[in-house]
Amino acid sequence: MQLKKILPLAALGIALPAMGFAQDEVADSLDAVTAMNAEMVFIFNSLLFLIGGFLVFFMAAGFCMLETGLVRSKNATMQATKNVALFSLAGIAYFIVGFNLMYPLGDWVIEGWLGGISPTVLEPVGVPFDELDDVEYASIGSDFIFQLMFCAATASIVSGAVAERVKLFPFLIFVVILTGIIYPIQASWSWGEGFLDEMGFSDFAGSSIVHAAGGFAALAGVIVIGARYGKYGADGKVTVMPGSNLPLATLGMFILWLGWFGFNGGSQLAMGTVSDVADVSRIFANTNTAASGGAVAALILSTILYKKPDLTMVLNGALAGLVSITAEPLTPGLGSATLIGAVGGVIVVLTIPLLDKLKIDDVVGAIPVHGFAGLWGTLAVPLTNPDASFGTQIVGMALICGFMFVASLVVFLILKAVMGVRVSDEDQVTGLDKTEMGMEAYPEFSKT
Amino acid sequence: MQLKKILPLAALGIALPAMGFAQDEVADSLDAVTAMNAEMVFIFNSLLFLIGGFLVFFMAAGFCMLETGLVRSKNATMQATKNVALFSLAGIAYFIVGFNLMYPLGDWVIEGWLGGISPTVLEPVGVPFDELDDVEYASIGSDFIFQLMFCAATASIVSGAVAERVKLFPFLIFVVILTGIIYPIQASWSWGEGFLDEMGFSDFAGSSIVHAAGGFAALAGVIVIGARYGKYGADGKVTVMPGSNLPLATLGMFILWLGWFGFNGGSQLAMGTVSDVADVSRIFANTNTAASGGAVAALILSTILYKKPDLTMVLNGALAGLVSITAEPLTPGLGSATLIGAVGGVIVVLTIPLLDKLKIDDVVGAIPVHGFAGLWGTLAVPLTNPDASFGTQIVGMALICGFMFVASLVVFLILKAVMGVRVSDEDQVTGLDKTEMGMEAYPEFSKT
Amino acid sequence: MQLKKILPLAALGIALPAMGFAQDEVADSLDAVTAMNAEMVFIFNSLLFLIGGFLVFFMAAGFCMLETGLVRSKNATMQATKNVALFSLAGIAYFIVGFNLMYPLGDWVIEGWLGGISPTVLEPVGVPFDELDDVEYASIGSDFIFQLMFCAATASIVSGAVAERVKLFPFLIFVVILTGIIYPIQASWSWGEGFLDEMGFSDFAGSSIVHAAGGFAALAGVIVIGARYGKYGADGKVTVMPGSNLPLATLGMFILWLGWFGFNGGSQLAMGTVSDVADVSRIFANTNTAASGGAVAALILSTILYKKPDLTMVLNGALAGLVSITAEPLTPGLGSATLIGAVGGVIVVLTIPLLDKLKIDDVVGAIPVHGFAGLWGTLAVPLTNPDASFGTQIVGMALICGFMFVASLVVFLILKAVMGVRVSDEDQVTGLDKTEMGMEAYPEFSKT
Repeated sequence: MQLKKILPLAALGIALPAMGFAQDEVADSLDAVTAMNAEMVFIFNSLLFLIGGFLVFFMAAGFCMLETGLVRSKNATMQATKNVALFSLAGIAYFIVGFNLMYPLGDWVIEGWLGGISPTVLEPVGVPFDELDDVEYASIGSDFIFQLMFCAATASIVSGAVAERVKLFPFLIFVVILTGIIYPIQASWSWGEGFLDEMGFSDFAGSSIVHAAGGFAALAGVIVIGARYGKYGADGKVTVMPGSNLPLATLGMFILWLGWFGFNGGSQLAMGTVSDVADVSRIFANTNTAASGGAVAALILSTILYKKPDLTMVLNGALAGLVSITAEPLTPGLGSATLIGAVGGVIVVLTIPLLDKLKIDDVVGAIPVHGFAGLWGTLAVPLTNPDASFGTQIVGMALICGFMFVASLVVFLILKAVMGVRVSDEDQVTGLDKTEMGMEAYPEFSKT
Repeated sequence: MQLKKILPLAALGIALPAMGFAQDEVADSLDAVTAMNAEMVFIFNSLLFLIGGFLVFFMAAGFCMLETGLVRSKNATMQATKNVALFSLAGIAYFIVGFNLMYPLGDWVIEGWLGGISPTVLEPVGVPFDELDDVEYASIGSDFIFQLMFCAATASIVSGAVAERVKLFPFLIFVVILTGIIYPIQASWSWGEGFLDEMGFSDFAGSSIVHAAGGFAALAGVIVIGARYGKYGADGKVTVMPGSNLPLATLGMFILWLGWFGFNGGSQLAMGTVSDVADVSRIFANTNTAASGGAVAALILSTILYKKPDLTMVLNGALAGLVSITAEPLTPGLGSATLIGAVGGVIVVLTIPLLDKLKIDDVVGAIPVHGFAGLWGTLAVPLTNPDASFGTQIVGMALICGFMFVASLVVFLILKAVMGVRVSDEDQVTGLDKTEMGMEAYPEFSKT
Repeated sequence: MQLKKILPLAALGIALPAMGFAQDEVADSLDAVTAMNAEMVFIFNSLLFLIGGFLVFFMAAGFCMLETGLVRSKNATMQATKNVALFSLAGIAYFIVGFNLMYPLGDWVIEGWLGGISPTVLEPVGVPFDELDDVEYASIGSDFIFQLMFCAATASIVSGAVAERVKLFPFLIFVVILTGIIYPIQASWSWGEGFLDEMGFSDFAGSSIVHAAGGFAALAGVIVIGARYGKYGADGKVTVMPGSNLPLATLGMFILWLGWFGFNGGSQLAMGTVSDVADVSRIFANTNTAASGGAVAALILSTILYKKPDLTMVLNGALAGLVSITAEPLTPGLGSATLIGAVGGVIVVLTIPLLDKLKIDDVVGAIPVHGFAGLWGTLAVPLTNPDASFGTQIVGMALICGFMFVASLVVFLILKAVMGVRVSDEDQVTGLDKTEMGMEAYPEFSKT
C-alpha cells in the first residue's frame, strides 16, 4: 500500500507522450527526464497489476482443483461447475457494481462506510498521459483486473466449505451478492480509504479482508445449509469422507501457492522505483517461506498427533502459512515469516478436528485455513510492523468478520426460505453429479 | 496492432548502448533521454512478448488437458501424445519456414499473398542498439516465440475435433504442413501486411486468423476422417460418448483462460508507453469479462434447454466467449465485451447439437467454439470499432476460412489416399491407447 | 551470466531515489538520466528474477505431477506428500544456510571451495537506491527467490528416482542436507565465483550444476535404497510397473516446460538493456525448440525401436531436450538448439532401458533425463560457445557429479545405518499410501 514517490506532474510544465516529444518541443531536458520517469513508473505499476492479475486469476483454477480433488467423485462435476460459474459471475458483478463500491475515490454514499454505486468505466482506448485517471498509480484496467481476482477468491473460499450439498443456483445467487455487494462494502472500509483505514487497521494483502472474510462467510453458509448427510451420526460419530483425487488437490495447492506471489507481491501496488521492486522481492521471499513454514509445521504436528503424516493437512498447512503472512508480507524477516506461517499450520491441524466436534461440516477445511489463519495473520501484524497496534487489529478483525458473517447469514437464510439451499439427503447419497447435473466426473472409473 | 510512437532514431544523432554512454560522450542530454526512452520502449515491448509467449505456450497444456479429459480413457494416452507431439513439431516447422512465410517484411514471393521462404534467424548474441532488426518494435526472438504459440494453437484446435480415431503419424504430418505452410500463408495476408491488411480487415488477436482458421481446418479433417465408430446409428440415433475426466477438462479450460490474457494482451504488440499499457489493461479486463459472459450464457441456456446445467457446455461457453472477444478486445467497454462473449456462449450451446444432426463428429466442440464463435467475433468488430466495416470483415472471414478449409481438405485427402488417416473400427472399439500405443492412461482404474 | 553494463555509480555525483529528485536538486540533467537509467536497469533485472522465480517455482508442481502420475496409484499420495514437503524444507534450508553458502560474495570459509555460513538477510523495507546491496544487479530478495527454486529442483529430481520405496522422513532429512549444504557448496564453485568459475567452466543455467547434480544425487539414492520390490526378477526379468495417471504426468511435463522459460531466461541475470532483453528472447526461443527437438527425436526413435510410440518416452524426451540446452541456451541458433535437444531425446530413449539392465531402478527416468542429458548439454557448450573448452567442461562435469554422488551416497548410507531408508517389501506390495500414510490418492477408483 506504499504510494510511489513521484514528482507532482504540476512540476512537469508540459505533458509529454512517451516518445512524442521532438527535440525542439522540449524546453528543458530535465522536464523530459521527469516526464519519462513518470511514464516508466506508471508502466511498471500497471505491469505489476497485470502480472499479479493473471497470477491471482489462476488461483481460481487452484481453488477449483483443490476442492474438486477433496470432494467425493460423485460430486466432482458439480464442484467444478460451481467454481467456473462463481468466478464468471464474480467478474460480472464486480464490474457492474463491486469495483466502485469498493473504491469510491471519495465519492461515498455514506462517508467511509458505503461506497459509490456505478459500473466500472475503463480509461479510453489509447489514453494519453495527461488524461490518465491517476498518473501516480496505474491504469484503471490493470487495477480492476487485479482487484477483481481478490473479490472472486472470497467466493471460492465459500464454495469449498459448502461443497457436496449446497444447491447450485441458490449458491450462485449468493455469489453474486457476495462479490457485487458484501465483499466490496467491507473491503472499502480498509482499501477504499474507509473508516478502518482511518483507524489505522493494517492488512496488507487481505488476511482478514479477503481470507477471514471468506472464511466467515463460509461459516454462515455451513451453519444455514447444515452438514452433509451422514457426516455426523446421532452417537457423535464422525464419518470420514475422503477426497476422491488427492493428486488433483495437490495440484490445486501448488497453483494457489503460485498465485500467492501475485496476491501478496502485487499488493505492494507499485514497482516503478528500486525501493518498490525491492519490497516486492521481500514479499515474494516472505510469502514463499511462510508457506514452507505452514507445510512443515502441519507435517510434523499431524505426524505427532496421528502417528502418520497426512497429505491434506500438509496442503492445508501450506495454505494456512500463505494466509497468515498475507496481512503483513513485507516487514518480517525470513525467520519471522517462517514462524508466522508455521503458527498458521499449527492452527489448521488443531482446529480442523475441532470443527467436527462442533458438527460444523467444512468439506475442505476452508474455515480453519482462511478464517482462523487469517485472524492469526492479522493479529500478528504488530509483531513486525510498528505502525500497527493489537487493539486496532482486533477491532478491524471483529468488524470485518462480524459483518461478513451476519450479511452472509442473512442472505443464506433468505435463500433458504425462498428457494431452499440444500440438496435432499437422497440426492446427496446418489451424488449431485447424477441428480443435479446428469453427468459424471469420471464415468468410467467410479466403483458405484 | 497499434504501432508505438517513437522518435526516429535518425533524430538521435548518436546511438547509445543502454548504459554505455559516459558523461563526456554525450553532447546533449536530451539525446540521452531520447535514446534511453527508445531502449526502454524496446525492452517493454519485448517483455510483453516474452510474458505473452509463456502464457500462450501454456495454452498447449490447456488444450491437452481439455482434450484428454473429454475423450474416453481408452484414448487418453493417444490424445496426450498428439498434443505434445503437435506442439513440438509446430515449433520446428514454424522456425524452419513458417515465421518468415508469415512475416515477409516486404520480401514476398507473391506480393501480399505468399511470403518469403527462409528459416528464422534471431538477432546475434548481445546485439547492440544500432544493430537491432527493428528498434521501434521488439527483439526477433520475443516476436518469434509469441507468434509461434498462435501457430501451434491452430493445430491444437484441430487435434480436439479429430480425436479418438485419427491415426497419429498422418495427423502429425498434417500438423507440420498446417503450422509450417497453411497457417503462415493465411496469417501473412493480415498480420504480415498482406492484401487483407491492405483491405482494412480487422482481427486484433485472431478470432478468424487463429480460431476460425483452426476450426475450419478441423472441419475439413472431421469430414475426411469420418465420425468415430458407433457415434451415429443408422437410425439417426446419436450415441453420447462422455469424457472420462471432467476435472481435467476443467483445468484445461482454466489454463486456456489464463493463456488468453497473453494471447489478447500481447497482441497489443507494445507496452512501452502509458497509452499502450493502459490498452493492454483494457484488453485484460475485456478478455476476462467476455469469458465470464460466455460461461454464464452457456450455463443459463443449457439449463433452460436441457433442464440441468451441463459442465462441458459451461467450459465451452467460456472458451467461446474468449474466442469471440479475440477479434476486438480493445475497443469494447466492459458491458459490450460481456455481451459479445455471451453471444459466443449462446452460439456454442445452439450449434454443438446441430453438428451432431449433420453427423459431423467433433469430439470436443472445437468447430463451434473456435470456428463459429470466431466468425461471430470477427463479424462483431464493427459494432465497437468504427475503423472496421461489415463488408470487409465478411470478405476476410470467407477468404480465411475458405482457404483453411480447402487447403486442409486437400492435405487430408492426400494423406488418406497415401497412408490412411483413420484407425480401424475394431481398434477404435479396443481403444487407440492399447492398439496404437500399447500403454494405458489409467491402467489401474479402467473398468474394462 | 553476462553482467549488465552500467555506469559506475561513482560517476553519478549524486544518488537520486527514483523520483525523489526535485528540479532544483539536480545540477546536471545528464546525471538525472544516468541515475534514472540505473534505477530502471535495477528494476528490470529484479523483475526478471521475480518472473523467473514464479515460473521456476511452478516447476515444483510440474515435478510433483510428473512423478505422481508415473508412480502406481498405491504410492501416489506419498509421492505428492514428498514433493510438497521437499519443496517446503528446501525453502527453509536454503535461507538458513544454503544461499550464503552458495553466494559468499568473497566471504569464503575456504577460498573458492566453501562459502560463507550465515542465514539470508534481505534488504531493509523501502531500501533507497544508495543503500542497495548491489546497484548493478538486482534486489537480494528477487535473487534469493530465483536461486532457491534451482536448489529445490535438485531435490525434486531425486524424489522421482527413489519413488515408491524410500521412507518419507529419512528422505526429507536427505533433502535438508542436499538443499542446505551439498547443492550450495557445489553450486558456489561455478555460480558463486568459486574455483570452477575461475577455471572457465561454462554452465549457463545448470545442465550440470542443477540437473546432472540432481541426477547423480539420485543415482546415489537409488543404489543405497535398492530397487522396488518385484522390479527385477532373479531370472533377469524386468517387471514393467506402469504409471497410474499419464495425463497427470503429461501435465507435469508441460508445467516443467513452462517453468524452463524462467529457468533459462532468468539465468541471463539481466533484462535492463536491449542487448539483455534480446538475449533473453534468444534463450526463450532456443529453450523451446530444444524441447521440441527432444520430444520429436524420442517419439521417432521409440517408435522405430519398439514399433509403437511411447508417451513416457516423448515426455522424457522433451525434458531431456530442455536439460540439454540448459548449459548454453544463448549462443546456439535455432537449428543447433533443436539438434542439441534432439540428441538429449536420443540419449534418454537409449539409456532408460540400459539402467534396467544394470538393475538401477529409476522410477521416472530422472537419471537419464537430468543426469545423462545434463552431461551431454554441458559437453555441447563448446560446440556453439567459443569461450568454453571441452577439457574444462569435462573437468567441471566430473567434479560436480563426483561430489554430488559421493556426498549423497555418504548421507544416504548414514541414514540407512541410523534409521533405515527403505520401506519393507510387504509394505511396498500393499502400497506406501496405506502403510505409511493411511490415506489413498484415489480411494474410489482403485481396483484393489
